Amino acid sequence: MSSSVFEEIHSELKALRLIDPHTHINPHAAASTTLADILGYHYYTELAHSAGMPRQQIEEADLAPQEKVGRLIPWLRTIENTAQYSWLLEMCREFFGFEEERITVDNWESLYESSLSRMSQPDWEQQVLEQSGLDQVYLTNDFDDPLTGFDTSLYVPCLRTDDLVFHCGRREVRERLQQATGTTVTGTESMRAAIGELFRHFTANGARACAISLPPDFIPAAVSDASADGVIGHVFSGGVADRDQMILLSQFVFWTLADFCDQFGMPFDLMIGVNRRVYEDGVFQGQDLFDSRVSLIQYKALLNAFPRVRFPISVLAETSNQELVSYSWIFPNVITSGHWWYSNIPVFIERDTRARLQAVPATKQIGYYSDMYKLEFALPKFGMYRRILSRVLASEFVIDRNWSVDRAVGLGKQILRGNVESIFGARS
Amino acid sequence: MSSSVFEEIHSELKALRLIDPHTHINPHAAASTTLADILGYHYYTELAHSAGMPRQQIEEADLAPQEKVGRLIPWLRTIENTAQYSWLLEMCREFFGFEEERITVDNWESLYESSLSRMSQPDWEQQVLEQSGLDQVYLTNDFDDPLTGFDTSLYVPCLRTDDLVFHCGRREVRERLQQATGTTVTGTESMRAAIGELFRHFTANGARACAISLPPDFIPAAVSDASADGVIGHVFSGGVADRDQMILLSQFVFWTLADFCDQFGMPFDLMIGVNRRVYEDGVFQGQDLFDSRVSLIQYKALLNAFPRVRFPISVLAETSNQELVSYSWIFPNVITSGHWWYSNIPVFIERDTRARLQAVPATKQIGYYSDMYKLEFALPKFGMYRRILSRVLASEFVIDRNWSVDRAVGLGKQILRGNVESIFGARS
Amino acid sequence: MSSSVFEEIHSELKALRLIDPHTHINPHAAASTTLADILGYHYYTELAHSAGMPRQQIEEADLAPQEKVGRLIPWLRTIENTAQYSWLLEMCREFFGFEEERITVDNWESLYESSLSRMSQPDWEQQVLEQSGLDQVYLTNDFDDPLTGFDTSLYVPCLRTDDLVFHCGRREVRERLQQATGTTVTGTESMRAAIGELFRHFTANGARACAISLPPDFIPAAVSDASADGVIGHVFSGGVADRDQMILLSQFVFWTLADFCDQFGMPFDLMIGVNRRVYEDGVFQGQDLFDSRVSLIQYKALLNAFPRVRFPISVLAETSNQELVSYSWIFPNVITSGHWWYSNIPVFIERDTRARLQAVPATKQIGYYSDMYKLEFALPKFGMYRRILSRVLASEFVIDRNWSVDRAVGLGKQILRGNVESIFGARS
Repeated sequence: MSSSVFEEIHSELKALRLIDPHTHINPHAAASTTLADILGYHYYTELAHSAGMPRQQIEEADLAPQEKVGRLIPWLRTIENTAQYSWLLEMCREFFGFEEERITVDNWESLYESSLSRMSQPDWEQQVLEQSGLDQVYLTNDFDDPLTGFDTSLYVPCLRTDDLVFHCGRREVRERLQQATGTTVTGTESMRAAIGELFRHFTANGARACAISLPPDFIPAAVSDASADGVIGHVFSGGVADRDQMILLSQFVFWTLADFCDQFGMPFDLMIGVNRRVYEDGVFQGQDLFDSRVSLIQYKALLNAFPRVRFPISVLAETSNQELVSYSWIFPNVITSGHWWYSNIPVFIERDTRARLQAVPATKQIGYYSDMYKLEFALPKFGMYRRILSRVLASEFVIDRNWSVDRAVGLGKQILRGNVESIFGARS
Repeated sequence: MSSSVFEEIHSELKALRLIDPHTHINPHAAASTTLADILGYHYYTELAHSAGMPRQQIEEADLAPQEKVGRLIPWLRTIENTAQYSWLLEMCREFFGFEEERITVDNWESLYESSLSRMSQPDWEQQVLEQSGLDQVYLTNDFDDPLTGFDTSLYVPCLRTDDLVFHCGRREVRERLQQATGTTVTGTESMRAAIGELFRHFTANGARACAISLPPDFIPAAVSDASADGVIGHVFSGGVADRDQMILLSQFVFWTLADFCDQFGMPFDLMIGVNRRVYEDGVFQGQDLFDSRVSLIQYKALLNAFPRVRFPISVLAETSNQELVSYSWIFPNVITSGHWWYSNIPVFIERDTRARLQAVPATKQIGYYSDMYKLEFALPKFGMYRRILSRVLASEFVIDRNWSVDRAVGLGKQILRGNVESIFGARS
Repeated sequence: MSSSVFEEIHSELKALRLIDPHTHINPHAAASTTLADILGYHYYTELAHSAGMPRQQIEEADLAPQEKVGRLIPWLRTIENTAQYSWLLEMCREFFGFEEERITVDNWESLYESSLSRMSQPDWEQQVLEQSGLDQVYLTNDFDDPLTGFDTSLYVPCLRTDDLVFHCGRREVRERLQQATGTTVTGTESMRAAIGELFRHFTANGARACAISLPPDFIPAAVSDASADGVIGHVFSGGVADRDQMILLSQFVFWTLADFCDQFGMPFDLMIGVNRRVYEDGVFQGQDLFDSRVSLIQYKALLNAFPRVRFPISVLAETSNQELVSYSWIFPNVITSGHWWYSNIPVFIERDTRARLQAVPATKQIGYYSDMYKLEFALPKFGMYRRILSRVLASEFVIDRNWSVDRAVGLGKQILRGNVESIFGARS
């Protein structure tokens, strides 16, 4: 019976159209053009490299797509056990009609051809959106993105702020900021003016969130203008800042962003816990890891200072999930958000989903986002999540608590889509 | 078969009468008088507030009980998914004959009436105790509680020591201590005399444990009289202590309490890991959270120094459970105790229960306590635990290890009740 | 169906012959001679002591084996729930024909006799190896072990380096090092020469790995010869080193070991996270615990500096498993290794196994090692692991992903044995 309850719930959730509230899609090239776009996803290149593939083999300049795929294929045999491989297989089956059990050195070329012919169709992007049931896809835009040339009601802009908070020490970032905002930054006042300009630009173009990824040791704090003024002036006139000054600058910019989120009614996505460039010789985008010794207590001042700002929070370490659940249960402005990166595999998703459903108000949970770089990934990733969610709803709600299937489906729809609309704003 | 094994075990454990070894019951008003006592439990007010209910709506002065309930009811819809809501529903069904699927703005008034008529019966408290199968309920008494006017063999006193350890900086606490003990505290000697007096008073009134909740950064240590003397004198003469002095004072008082536990043969309940007032604008009792970066290694000196004191330990963060299991497996004086607060939801209870049953001597596990403020909560909370325990016993012991149902039930009874008696002393 | 799939997989994995890649076997006395060798394993003595048995009862000088067992038996009743007890029962059943449900004060003497008669057979060691399906057993040898008098193709030497890294402050360790290598250590050059000599000796005798257990606060770092020279000279001339100097010395020796692992193509087993002598009055080998606040980020410099050295890593705290999974997924030189000590119980093994299978290349996972001191323990410990592995393969691969049983068995064999051969070198 349990398994038929699962099927009932799952088929209803499968029929639900989706909004994907966090991706890295380039709206000017949203879908893949060859299998290299798919296999080039860092999840595959880093796993292949981890299994022994030299980085240079796939990062050679001017490597043709088919050649790149050909070099990755032999390594797939070492990662067939992974969840990531199962996404690959599902994409190949669902989008390209692949019917074999595994992708091998013997069969990949015909897969390459068949996928190429599909991806070459002029409406491929539309086909993928349709087959994946995607109504909207949220982006992660550089702060100086002009946000033109694409349909912002389909590809929804979000203001990515990592560079502003952590990399004002780089000349190129300072120049981009000043150029994008027409502002010469010399202190706190002009910095605020510049950031305000970014918010105006983004909200004018339908942006729905401000977003940032944060290292485990970051502690937000209010910084006085007096102390920030000097550092901003120093850094923006090209001076080299020491570690303490950079921390103060990061804190000032971060706090200012939260302030503008408050003014503009914009949710602030916090993705907490990543250490960048831990494996220095790793493949592109395959160098980051984490330190699980992080706590949401570091965000105490922020969460108290901005009660009106909604903070959808993602944690990288699964050991942080109970804190996230508890902080969401207590703080009205904390929202649980998806299953990020190293926590985005079934064993962790299942446990985190159970904890959130058991202890966080149903209105405060954003079930899933794909974090994808290419559109094709929404289908297998949401598919994985939907199966886990359906299983938890079947066993914990229908079987254990005697809920009707309809009621469980209603909860599932709220987690999967309803809350995305209520938290970020309904589809325009 | 597995499900019938579960039923057999569960029905036996359900028939077992209970001792609840940790509650916040007021023995002079143990049972609820209106539904507001139940819905006013911080688990509901904080979840409703988290979902959007302004704190002021329910913390208004002189708010009538029915009005308070009426203001909370609309928010229930946002938390129907939670384990806490399922306790509420179970209480309403078991105690008040409620038969609907959910409590709504349309049906709550009749529930309010029917519950009121039950709770108004003169023997309501006895009915609840009986229906819940409660033989004894341990309290958490302020150190200056006279412990009079109630049956201490039913409501068993326990000495709560948070104020003594952490709040001697408050004039009111110092005055309460000196008044309760007839002692003028000026240094280590008089402090020891005062605390000794508390132990005499409590043990004379049948107290079974000393208890304290501790922040994640607390590290017990022996403090020399020489260094403590000055600080005690300074603080008790109204001086303001700095952070280091307050830590030293806390360590001194804590260590002295452990010493008296040793002298009086009293278990010392340690509830490790809570940060107070993290969410400053939260509802009453809904402001505390935690930092999961805590380790039992912080208690190394204490556990080595007091081998004869039994330390039932509760951890707030589920990530601390493996340490608790391992420390209980190694240290004779460490006992696993219940599933505390943010860890008191099924997904964590289940996993923690499995780990404890797999690696801690059966004699050293206190399965559960309700932590309740009103008597009605024991029934659904112990109910939740009993179902999880029965499931683990069925699958891991009867199915996987071929134990008989009787033997599994025996283990369950020991965890649920037997150990409470052997560790805190049998019912008098 | 799921259960028959489990049976099919399990019976295939049960038939697989094993290599046990980490044990503490003494090759000159590999098997037990009496039940005291088995019950004297620290897992039983520490649990019995934890349950109340005074340490002195079993650590008395010249205690006869049968008397020692007789003193431990009454305490077994308190630990029948544990996984460790289930290993004991399985050994007694499989090796000694024990047929009762539990080992008690009434039946242990006949068990003692029957086990003694089996263990007294001249080929007992061979019988155990055969019945357990063991092809090879890796050892953990002191650095000054002559490695003579045993078959190193059956009992494979591994260089244990805890003493070198952490205990050069002890005169006896310094003397052993200098004597074993014929080197007078006075600075970095002679230290390198001595360590090089150890590597030559061990590899000449078929050693397959260098191994070390590390405390949670250890942070490997490259140390300049200039700064290490002085400390080595000071310590090796009998000087007392302060804490900072000892850390520097540990870092220098550790880094030098990694360097030689690189030169000699030797894997370096890192067992991360143990605090020694936490419970000072514990039984022999029953005093160590841990602090779960540890991160693999501490190993960043090491992992980047030695890309060619394979590092099979074991973590003591289960909360570190996700980091281990993620670091193995990114770093080519990180390999997940077994389920160590306090994490070696089913609830943790199951979860860790699922996470590793879902996210780490199949080629980079060493499923299990027994960590045993006596040969008889491989059978129940590998038995426990094999059941869990079979269950995960059945549910996640055959049921959820539609793999054939054969394919799932293939993955299981790779995890259980194939990778041991490919990582440490095939059986010679």
